[in-house]
Amino acid sequence: MHSFENTFPIWEKLTGAQREALTRHVTKRIVPKGTLLQSSAQDCMGLLLISQGQLRLFLVSEEGKEVTLYRLFERDICLFSASCMMPDIQFDIHIEAEKDCELWVIPTNVYKRLMEESAVAANYTNQLMASRFSEVMWLVEQVMWKSFDKRLAGFLLEESVLDDSEVLQITHEKIAAHLGTAREVVTRMLRYFQSEGLVELARGSITLTDRKRLEVLAE
Amino acid sequence: MHSFENTFPIWEKLTGAQREALTRHVTKRIVPKGTLLQSSAQDCMGLLLISQGQLRLFLVSEEGKEVTLYRLFERDICLFSASCMMPDIQFDIHIEAEKDCELWVIPTNVYKRLMEESAVAANYTNQLMASRFSEVMWLVEQVMWKSFDKRLAGFLLEESVLDDSEVLQITHEKIAAHLGTAREVVTRMLRYFQSEGLVELARGSITLTDRKRLEVLAE
Repeated sequence: MHSFENTFPIWEKLTGAQREALTRHVTKRIVPKGTLLQSSAQDCMGLLLISQGQLRLFLVSEEGKEVTLYRLFERDICLFSASCMMPDIQFDIHIEAEKDCELWVIPTNVYKRLMEESAVAANYTNQLMASRFSEVMWLVEQVMWKSFDKRLAGFLLEESVLDDSEVLQITHEKIAAHLGTAREVVTRMLRYFQSEGLVELARGSITLTDRKRLEVLAE
Repeated sequence: MHSFENTFPIWEKLTGAQREALTRHVTKRIVPKGTLLQSSAQDCMGLLLISQGQLRLFLVSEEGKEVTLYRLFERDICLFSASCMMPDIQFDIHIEAEKDCELWVIPTNVYKRLMEESAVAANYTNQLMASRFSEVMWLVEQVMWKSFDKRLAGFLLEESVLDDSEVLQITHEKIAAHLGTAREVVTRMLRYFQSEGLVELARGSITLTDRKRLEVLAE
């Protein structure tokens, strides 16, 4: 188990007073898998530092369709759970715990004060935003220019790495939500993958049977 | 004609030394319409403050397809022309002058130093990035969930505002590049719009003949 001091990336560069303010206000939150942590920017629970677990950040359309923007893992910081401190962020990001999570929560006003007085913290926040921006630009390129078979192959491989298993326990519905498409589109492509010997479909699971060819396809 | 001091948004909040460093290094650049200012992050010419004119930021796929991310106007600051100062930015943005431009250029190393020593400058940069991030998220939502007729109607209305005219001098090819699709798709939809009485097509121009219905469609 990591301590906050050992995990928060810019700890060493903060002043004594700044460290004290953080220590005084940081809380630990245990969140079971499946919890929806945020469904609009108004929630604004604060900056989240992941001690254990995995978060998914996604968009939801007016009609309730989803698309995954990116995931965050151990030692990552979730910035958009504090987006009320950034009035120029004009979109609602949904955040859910994809695994059981242990999170440190830095209250929004505490972090905002830190950013205002510390160029180090402000520049670090910049760096976080730039790296999330890059993830979203990657998604734009995928959606604009990559055909759906490539995106699906890439998604299956990524899931397999995250779960450390060739057998994915995931419904077609869920995959559709990740990739921002309809369930039928996913089912049709998975059946095609099966007919090509790339995967084996069973009720509630998908087994990757030819990793190499999936990788070639995804590239 | 604006002076740099009157246009740079955080001027009042900088110290004397910081102002002096900016004044010493800022240069003015005149760029004719159509100039490609940047085609990869390596170009990194510095922060651009638009005194006059209009910039377009866009992505280009490996196959040469384009999609417009957003436009910048008078008094806007272009951050991604200095993206080499942010190693977490991992995508190449192309930048072109869409109108004749007069730009102030702040060299990348000068602005980077300013950000490192000034929390005000770092937070302002954050704010810029957040606002560009919002534009790109809007694009993601458009592409994921909005049908092409709505996007095209929205684009024609936006162009008409930018040109201050009901007659757009733009090719179908160019529209396709803005919206990240093929020319044929644009031509087909424009012909449909014409048959519905929304626009009138002529060689090299498109006239908006029913603004109201285009607005309803775009919503």
